[in-house]
Amino acid sequence: MKEQVHGGDVYRYPDAIDYSSNMNPMGTPEAVIRAARESMSRIANYPDVRCDRLRAALSAAEQVPQDWLICGNGAAELIFSLAFALRPGKALVAAPTFAEYEQALRAAGSEVCFYSLKRENGFEADEGLAEAIRREKPQMVILCSPNNPTGLLIPDQVMEQVRDVCRREDVFLVMDECFLDFVEDGEKLSQKPYLEEQKLFILRAFTKRYAMAGLRLGYGICADPGVLEKMHEVMQPWSVSIPAQAAGVAALAQEEYVRESLEVVKQERAFLRGVLEEHGFYVYDSRANYLFFRAPRGLREALLEHGIMIRSCANYRNLGEEYYRIAVRKREDNEKFKAALEALAGKDGGRWQRQL
Amino acid sequence: MKEQVHGGDVYRYPDAIDYSSNMNPMGTPEAVIRAARESMSRIANYPDVRCDRLRAALSAAEQVPQDWLICGNGAAELIFSLAFALRPGKALVAAPTFAEYEQALRAAGSEVCFYSLKRENGFEADEGLAEAIRREKPQMVILCSPNNPTGLLIPDQVMEQVRDVCRREDVFLVMDECFLDFVEDGEKLSQKPYLEEQKLFILRAFTKRYAMAGLRLGYGICADPGVLEKMHEVMQPWSVSIPAQAAGVAALAQEEYVRESLEVVKQERAFLRGVLEEHGFYVYDSRANYLFFRAPRGLREALLEHGIMIRSCANYRNLGEEYYRIAVRKREDNEKFKAALEALAGKDGGRWQRQL
Repeated sequence: MKEQVHGGDVYRYPDAIDYSSNMNPMGTPEAVIRAARESMSRIANYPDVRCDRLRAALSAAEQVPQDWLICGNGAAELIFSLAFALRPGKALVAAPTFAEYEQALRAAGSEVCFYSLKRENGFEADEGLAEAIRREKPQMVILCSPNNPTGLLIPDQVMEQVRDVCRREDVFLVMDECFLDFVEDGEKLSQKPYLEEQKLFILRAFTKRYAMAGLRLGYGICADPGVLEKMHEVMQPWSVSIPAQAAGVAALAQEEYVRESLEVVKQERAFLRGVLEEHGFYVYDSRANYLFFRAPRGLREALLEHGIMIRSCANYRNLGEEYYRIAVRKREDNEKFKAALEALAGKDGGRWQRQL
Repeated sequence: MKEQVHGGDVYRYPDAIDYSSNMNPMGTPEAVIRAARESMSRIANYPDVRCDRLRAALSAAEQVPQDWLICGNGAAELIFSLAFALRPGKALVAAPTFAEYEQALRAAGSEVCFYSLKRENGFEADEGLAEAIRREKPQMVILCSPNNPTGLLIPDQVMEQVRDVCRREDVFLVMDECFLDFVEDGEKLSQKPYLEEQKLFILRAFTKRYAMAGLRLGYGICADPGVLEKMHEVMQPWSVSIPAQAAGVAALAQEEYVRESLEVVKQERAFLRGVLEEHGFYVYDSRANYLFFRAPRGLREALLEHGIMIRSCANYRNLGEEYYRIAVRKREDNEKFKAALEALAGKDGGRWQRQL
């Protein structure tokens, strides 16, 4: 099996504080854990193939019809299902971004072309994105906002251009909004209002919002029943487990937790940004629950020795060994992160300055 | 969404006794439920993408190298992954059999041809199977033994012919052995000894053996690392949840439970067979934890009114509305099943006789 290249490998580094995967720093809500635990008494049954209770709760929460909703074994499964269901001959993704878009598209036999988010542009999407879509003529575009690993939002006017060109050129637009939950007033930035205006699929996850990555639960919203039907054809019927369905229903009732999480993320993101900048690292303007920054090579390994696991972004397309991502965690951990960096700076400060 | 056509739809019929899905009648072992519940405190993490602890336990239990093992979100996910990974131009399956083979193969763009298990042959596979493989020249063959829904084993000499023709014609053989756990001395019937002799993939599940369908956990055994690598390319990395991995490790320690289950299944299968035959229904010689039989049309609906849900096999290829499948359950339920049939016979007995 290939080397683990994702964040969150707490299995190989069980003692490190995990800054490498982007969870809600508040931890899993107790009510979610309780609901999943209670559901265990029913696991001799198959899960509900229609996810009826969960989709009803989602329909109320998202204010969309229940039959626009599809649930999956994590948002990642839905990315693969979309690719296999629609099999675009050519697809465009931005780079750097979440690696599974490219993996899923290639697995489905698609040619993948890239819109490069450039370092000199601060990795922000600009009008070149719509131009690239016009030029490359893909059948599908997958975008992520806020983007992973940068945390940057796609600016409104760029999204408008993208929607426009996709509508005119009949391109299927996939918007991964999994991290929008951590953006202030994020709901206003959602592409949901355009679901009936064009070929659009919006991807969301419980994973990050409720810190339940280990249970696997994501969902998609699409106004075209034909697309959802095609997705069901390439998926097993029972992909969403009983505990995941139960936890999802319980999670959607946790409105206060979500509000608090936004506050904690905002505050701790600012704290961590200050810590990183103090060391002269270049920090990008993430709006999500993680921070993307440029720092000397070898920082991941050095921090691991101090019990801190961060995400190297070296394996992202268009990035290199000097790029890193850290999750926003609680203050208690963040103080340890700060102390670890200071300990390293005392030892290696001079070397960092040279490399930056 | 399409009408539910699988067994186990306890969500639309919550009050009925479920004879429609083939679980271990002993119910989920307490230790498995406990392990899954305990794992809930860790669900903020992503699951181990390598399933290392689980695969180590499986390696010991199955007596195969750990790197021959791949885990999935239920065996059903692995069927889809195999189809998408190998994309056979043409594949052969028997009929009737588990519908997901055909669904997965078609989703992967394969032409699917069928070897007909014939009523006049008691739905048993014979030398015609190897002949069909030679004639149709598929790149992949998927077989299930004991077969679903019939419960019949593929006879030894037929398996020998099949292995032989697959070896000579370079056909990839997939053996679904998910129900072999309920067959007396089933382990001796496994195709495991041939894993290194030819292109062979063996499918197994925790679902039925430990009555944990709601948690989703299956696995495959294959001696060709290239095949497993290709499967990983078409799957998301995190498909096996934390509770499923924890439950799987705990389940493998339940050796006494598995032995007892075999006894219960043997005894109750005989009891239920007697009940069905008393009513003049034709019962096939299932070796698994379910019984396949022929009875009057409308029996499913009639039994539902008596609080019993059975599986109509009308939607299986090569079957019709007079075929049914019931799970083997515990005596307490089986007495209720018997009473329901007797109540119906009192009312409809004459009509049954005419239709059989």
